[in-house]
Amino acid sequence: MPQLRKDPVLKQWVIISPERGKRPSDFKKTEQVIDDPKTCPFCEGNEQMTPPETMSFRTAGTSPNHKGWWVRIVPDNAPILKPDGDSDREGIGMFDAMNSIGVHEMVIESPHHHINIQNSTIEQVREVIWAYKQRLLEIKKNPRYKHFMIVKNSGAGVSNFSHSHSHIVATPIIPKRIEEELEGAREYYHYHDRCLFCDIIKQESKDKARLVHEDENFIVFCPFASRFPFEMEITPKLHMPFFEMIENHQVHGFATALQAALKRLETLLPGQPYNFVLHTSPCSDSYREFYHWHIELIPKLTKVAGFEWGSGFYINPTPPEDAAKMLREVKISE
Amino acid sequence: MPQLRKDPVLKQWVIISPERGKRPSDFKKTEQVIDDPKTCPFCEGNEQMTPPETMSFRTAGTSPNHKGWWVRIVPDNAPILKPDGDSDREGIGMFDAMNSIGVHEMVIESPHHHINIQNSTIEQVREVIWAYKQRLLEIKKNPRYKHFMIVKNSGAGVSNFSHSHSHIVATPIIPKRIEEELEGAREYYHYHDRCLFCDIIKQESKDKARLVHEDENFIVFCPFASRFPFEMEITPKLHMPFFEMIENHQVHGFATALQAALKRLETLLPGQPYNFVLHTSPCSDSYREFYHWHIELIPKLTKVAGFEWGSGFYINPTPPEDAAKMLREVKISE
Repeated sequence: MPQLRKDPVLKQWVIISPERGKRPSDFKKTEQVIDDPKTCPFCEGNEQMTPPETMSFRTAGTSPNHKGWWVRIVPDNAPILKPDGDSDREGIGMFDAMNSIGVHEMVIESPHHHINIQNSTIEQVREVIWAYKQRLLEIKKNPRYKHFMIVKNSGAGVSNFSHSHSHIVATPIIPKRIEEELEGAREYYHYHDRCLFCDIIKQESKDKARLVHEDENFIVFCPFASRFPFEMEITPKLHMPFFEMIENHQVHGFATALQAALKRLETLLPGQPYNFVLHTSPCSDSYREFYHWHIELIPKLTKVAGFEWGSGFYINPTPPEDAAKMLREVKISE
Repeated sequence: MPQLRKDPVLKQWVIISPERGKRPSDFKKTEQVIDDPKTCPFCEGNEQMTPPETMSFRTAGTSPNHKGWWVRIVPDNAPILKPDGDSDREGIGMFDAMNSIGVHEMVIESPHHHINIQNSTIEQVREVIWAYKQRLLEIKKNPRYKHFMIVKNSGAGVSNFSHSHSHIVATPIIPKRIEEELEGAREYYHYHDRCLFCDIIKQESKDKARLVHEDENFIVFCPFASRFPFEMEITPKLHMPFFEMIENHQVHGFATALQAALKRLETLLPGQPYNFVLHTSPCSDSYREFYHWHIELIPKLTKVAGFEWGSGFYINPTPPEDAAKMLREVKISE
């Protein structure tokens, strides 16, 4: 069972995986990327190669864990958090630890090996979003999970599977990074009686210098203090704390904005590995007024060195205004 | 002039370098590592290849920027912060920005290309520590710098120079990461009336499971909530907020502990790239009671993926107890 341990200075939780128990020689091996549809556990027809599915969208009459699906969700093969057992919070001398209770599942975004969010139909992107929503609503019923997140690691060096997929992670505590967002947003709300994210969206929409895409419901922009070159934020324009409350009329706008951001990135920087994280409000009503769900999209272009680790200061060699202009102006196929 | 911009949600400062102005094609180039003593600007005899030195330890009678030195400090060629001009703090709509005022210098740790902290004499390591101390005391005289840090990026993929060197960085604000340490340490001090770092040191010294090296004045251990495999902390055992107040009798202990940690890492994981950061108290007396200077040493073994970026949760596949045992038991040449 992986263990959660808390750093007493930074109050940052770390997942320690004793069963992975990596020794020095293990780090030298190059990790194999599974890129052959025959051995790919995410391809249609290979359903037996994954743990049994927790959810799928599939043709009426087909059976779970067999062909006939278009989006499929399965537990991760080597989960960082596990849904069974008690959290067993305990003190170890002055330190705090608990069992690594939680959910770690994979969303397989298409039955076909070479279809991803950039190159799929907009209908398929909408289905992936519906799957995120439906699975989150289900997981949220378990009161011991305080927060959940959707994470995507895409491309060489950031994922071992080339078949397009994302992760759903539910945690028994609110992660430090989210606590920090909540604190910043709460403070601004107390001072201004307005949502910080809403104000940023209004300014970006008006200013336009960092804008990448905008329509009636969604906006994509390069943040003013982008930590990374070509970093983007994707968020609904109307105040909305919980992603999983997304409604029918918004799903299409979100699918369009997400696909536009990824298509523009792919055209400008072909084959570029990237991560995205979807941040939604923790499972409580107390953040409703000042938290606003969003996606942070980070192309993996720069290395993070000692200064960034040691200070929390990032160095970005591409001003977000330049990045947004290039992303906006690049010609993409419709 | 690079610009400092503040993320309004996370209150995290980012350095935006418009003059680097990196475009998509710039990221594809592999960066050249300078590994030939003939073209290495840090080798003795090549002093004209760096900006003029700000400090050096050199033989009596030799001239600055010529041969005859054993430790030499020069401004960085492409500094992330610059000492000239005004900070010009300003609001851009709802955002905050200022000029990137500060100090960014390089400490050349030996005149010889292949000498580094692991393989040099202990006397040379002591000289490097004296140079750190003396230069920090000098920089500290300028009241506009609020914090300074020593950073080392060593090895392929983390530095463009193979000649052993480190960075001194002085910033006009206290970096977010240090603010977080101060906050955690302050809270513990208010509750317990004891320094959090002193308590951790006592527990690690007694427990021994995560201990790597200990002598009269210094301790090296793998932190309880290590974020990375084989991460180590090096710190004085007696309470000491300011590194730059290190005294004669402690310099030898620090040199020995630092060299021991790096030698053990090098023997266990030969040629392993690593970063270290030296955290010392900000330039103010108000942290004196609860802050405790230390080095964080991070071997670059794992990749940081979307989940870590998005949550601030780290996943460490090597329990620190296993890491410490291997580091402790590895045979090193004296």
